[in-house]
Amino acid sequence: MPEEEKLRGMEEPIYAVPGFKASAVAAGIKKTRGLDLALIYSEKVANVAAVFTKNKVKAAPVVLSREHTRDGRARAIVANSGNANACTGKAGLATARKTAELVAGELGILPEEVLVASTGVIGAPLDMDLISRAVPDLVKGLSWEGVHRAAEAIMTTDTFPKISRFQGRAGGKDYGILGIAKGAGMIMPDMATMLGFVMTDLRVEADELRDALISSVDSTFNRISVDGDTSTNDMLVLMANGAAGNRELRGEDRKEFRSGLTRVLQDLAGMIVRDGEGATKVVNIEIRGAHSPSDAFEAARTVANSSLVKTAFYGADPNWGRIMAALGRAGITMAEESVDIWIDEVQIVAGGTGVGPESERKAAEKMAGDLFSVTIDLHQGACRDRVITCDLTHEYVSINAEYRT
Amino acid sequence: MPEEEKLRGMEEPIYAVPGFKASAVAAGIKKTRGLDLALIYSEKVANVAAVFTKNKVKAAPVVLSREHTRDGRARAIVANSGNANACTGKAGLATARKTAELVAGELGILPEEVLVASTGVIGAPLDMDLISRAVPDLVKGLSWEGVHRAAEAIMTTDTFPKISRFQGRAGGKDYGILGIAKGAGMIMPDMATMLGFVMTDLRVEADELRDALISSVDSTFNRISVDGDTSTNDMLVLMANGAAGNRELRGEDRKEFRSGLTRVLQDLAGMIVRDGEGATKVVNIEIRGAHSPSDAFEAARTVANSSLVKTAFYGADPNWGRIMAALGRAGITMAEESVDIWIDEVQIVAGGTGVGPESERKAAEKMAGDLFSVTIDLHQGACRDRVITCDLTHEYVSINAEYRT
Repeated sequence: MPEEEKLRGMEEPIYAVPGFKASAVAAGIKKTRGLDLALIYSEKVANVAAVFTKNKVKAAPVVLSREHTRDGRARAIVANSGNANACTGKAGLATARKTAELVAGELGILPEEVLVASTGVIGAPLDMDLISRAVPDLVKGLSWEGVHRAAEAIMTTDTFPKISRFQGRAGGKDYGILGIAKGAGMIMPDMATMLGFVMTDLRVEADELRDALISSVDSTFNRISVDGDTSTNDMLVLMANGAAGNRELRGEDRKEFRSGLTRVLQDLAGMIVRDGEGATKVVNIEIRGAHSPSDAFEAARTVANSSLVKTAFYGADPNWGRIMAALGRAGITMAEESVDIWIDEVQIVAGGTGVGPESERKAAEKMAGDLFSVTIDLHQGACRDRVITCDLTHEYVSINAEYRT
Repeated sequence: MPEEEKLRGMEEPIYAVPGFKASAVAAGIKKTRGLDLALIYSEKVANVAAVFTKNKVKAAPVVLSREHTRDGRARAIVANSGNANACTGKAGLATARKTAELVAGELGILPEEVLVASTGVIGAPLDMDLISRAVPDLVKGLSWEGVHRAAEAIMTTDTFPKISRFQGRAGGKDYGILGIAKGAGMIMPDMATMLGFVMTDLRVEADELRDALISSVDSTFNRISVDGDTSTNDMLVLMANGAAGNRELRGEDRKEFRSGLTRVLQDLAGMIVRDGEGATKVVNIEIRGAHSPSDAFEAARTVANSSLVKTAFYGADPNWGRIMAALGRAGITMAEESVDIWIDEVQIVAGGTGVGPESERKAAEKMAGDLFSVTIDLHQGACRDRVITCDLTHEYVSINAEYRT
C-alpha cells in the first residue's frame, strides 16, 4: 500500500480544507471495537450534491440523506461502519432520523442539514443507544485535522484509509478539494459500492456542483469493479462551503475545478480497486474500436466481471480464450476474426487467434506484476471505454465466506 | 459422488440403447493422457436436433455441427476434450472438417452425417495428427457398452462422468433415452456450458424432436449456473434412430417421451451443478410471486450468480442481506418491504427484514448440508422460476487460476 505510507508521511494540514472539521470515535458498533463513527462538519451552510445507489433495496440512511440533500444544502455528515442499517424497516429509518437529530442538536444546526451514512452488515438492527452515547464526544472531537481519523472510521474490510486531495486556484483564491472513501467489496460500475465524502472550500453553485459530480462519477466510480455486486448503501456526497471567497466559477476556473474533482475521485476509485477484497492485482480493461458507447462499456464491464477472467488474472495466465468468451456473451456487435488483444504493450491476439507462445510468455511476465492493462480493439467503430477491475483470489472467498460468522 | 458409484454398480447393458454404439480412446490431446476422444455412432441414419451456444464467439466444431445438423439427420458424433478448437480461425475449421471426413471415411458414411464437438482450452491449435492417428482405433472400438467410456472421455475439470437414462414404452414398443454430459465451469443459464449427447431408439419426427429438445432444455440446462460465464463450445445433441420400431408418436406416448427427455436432461444438469468447479453445495434458488416470467427468471439468475451470495453459501452463512441486495439490482419490479425469504422451510426474512437470530441459527444448520433451497416470494404477482446454482469456493479459484499453467 504505497499510498498509505505516502499519506502517513505527509504533514497533517494537508488533510484540511478551510471551514471543514472532522472527527471519529469508537462507538462500539464494530465488533473489532475500532473507530466506527465519523463526523464531517462545515462551519457555514454548504452547497451539496450527492449520488446514491441505484439498487432498489435502499438502506435507511440512503432514504434519509436523499431527503436531506434535496434542497441542495447541508452542514454535516455522520457515518458509521459495522452496521449498514439496511433492510431494517421503519425502525431503521427512525434510527437514521434520530441520529441526524442528535447530531444536529449537539451542533446547534437543523436536522435537515445533517446527512447520515452507514456501511456494514445488512439486516441487523443498529443500536441507537451506542450512537446516542457517542455523539457528544464525536462533536467535541471536531478539529481541522480530523479527516484522517474519519477516513479510518468508515472502513469495513478495507485495509487502508482512502484520502485524496487537490489544490487549485480560482479567481485569485486558493482552494482545496479533499475526499475520503471506503470500499472494498460489492463494487461494480453503476455507482460502485462505497461511501465517499468530498469537501471543497470553493464556492460552487448547486447546479454546477451537481453537474460536476455526476460527470466526474461517470468516468471514475462508475468505471471500477470488484465483484459485480452493488450495495444498498452507496453514497457519494460533495459539499462546497465557499470559504475560499471566490466569485461565481467560470471558464478556465470551472474547468480546473471539474478536472480537480475528477482527479480526486479517480484517485479514490483507484484505491478502492487496489484494496478490493482479496485483490492482489489491479487491471485496467480498455476497449477500443467499439460500435457504440454502450457496446464499449458493456464489453469492458463483462470482461471486468467474469469470474473466469479474474481467476486467470490471479494466476498470471494470459488465458485470452476466456476474454474472447466474455466478449462473445456481452451482447455487443463483434466479429471474432476482428479482435485484437494486448497485455500492456504485448499483443497476444491478432484477428481473433493467438499470436503465439512467445508473446504469451511475455504477457505472463507483465501479469506477474500487480498492475497491468488489457487492451481490446474490436475494430467495429470508434468508441472507447474502460473499467478498472481486480483479480479474484482465495482471499476474496475467505473474506466473504467468513465476513459475518 | 453417489451417482458414480450407483452407476458403476449397475449392469453394463443399462448404458446401451439399441442401434447405438460408442467408444473412446486416449489420443494424447489431454495433458493428463487420459481418454480424450469419444465417438457415438448410430447404425441407421438418425433424426437429430441440437442446440448450440449463443456466445458470439463460436468454436469451429460448433460452426461445423450447426451446418451438419441443418437437414435434421446425422449418424455420428466425434468429441474431443483437452482442446476447444475455439478462436483457431480457418485452420481450426479445417481441422473440424477433416475430423468429420476421417471419421466418415472409417465408418463408411457421409462427412455431413458426422457432428464434431470439442471442449478444453481455447485458442490453442488442435493437432490434427493426433486425431488422424486415433480415429481407426476409435472406430474399431465401437461397442454397445462404450457409452460409459465416452462419458469419461469428454470430461475436463469434471470429477465424475455424467450419465442418465430413461426407459419408456410407446405404441407397445420399449425404448430408452440415454444421455451423457460434461460440465463443469462456464455454466450459466442460456445454454449452460457443456457438451451433452442424448440418444434414443424411439422413432421421433424431426419437428417433434426439435420441439421436445428446446422445451426440455429451457427448464433444465437453461436453469443452472456455476459461474455466470458461457462458453464458445456449448452443444446439446439429441439423436433418434427409430430402432424401437414404433409408429408416429402421439398423445400420451408423446407426453411420456417429453417427460422422459426432461428427466434425463434434468438429471444431467443436476450432476453438472453438483460437479461445478470447486462446488461443495448445490443450491436451488426458487422465485415466487414475481410480476412477470422474465422478472422471475432475472431474480433467480441474479441471486444465483452473485459472488457475495455464493461465498455466503460456502460459509453456510444465512446472510440474507446479500440476497436482498442482489434482488435490488436485478432490474425487476419489487418492493423491499414485501420480500419473504426461506432457507428450506425456515423463514429468515419476513416483509423485507430479518425474522431473528433463532431462525438464522436454524437456517445455518440447513446450509451446513450439501443441498438446500432458497425460496424468495416477491409478492408482486403469480410468476415463478428457479435456477440451480452452487457455492463459490477456494477450490473454484484454485482450479481456474491454475487451469492452464
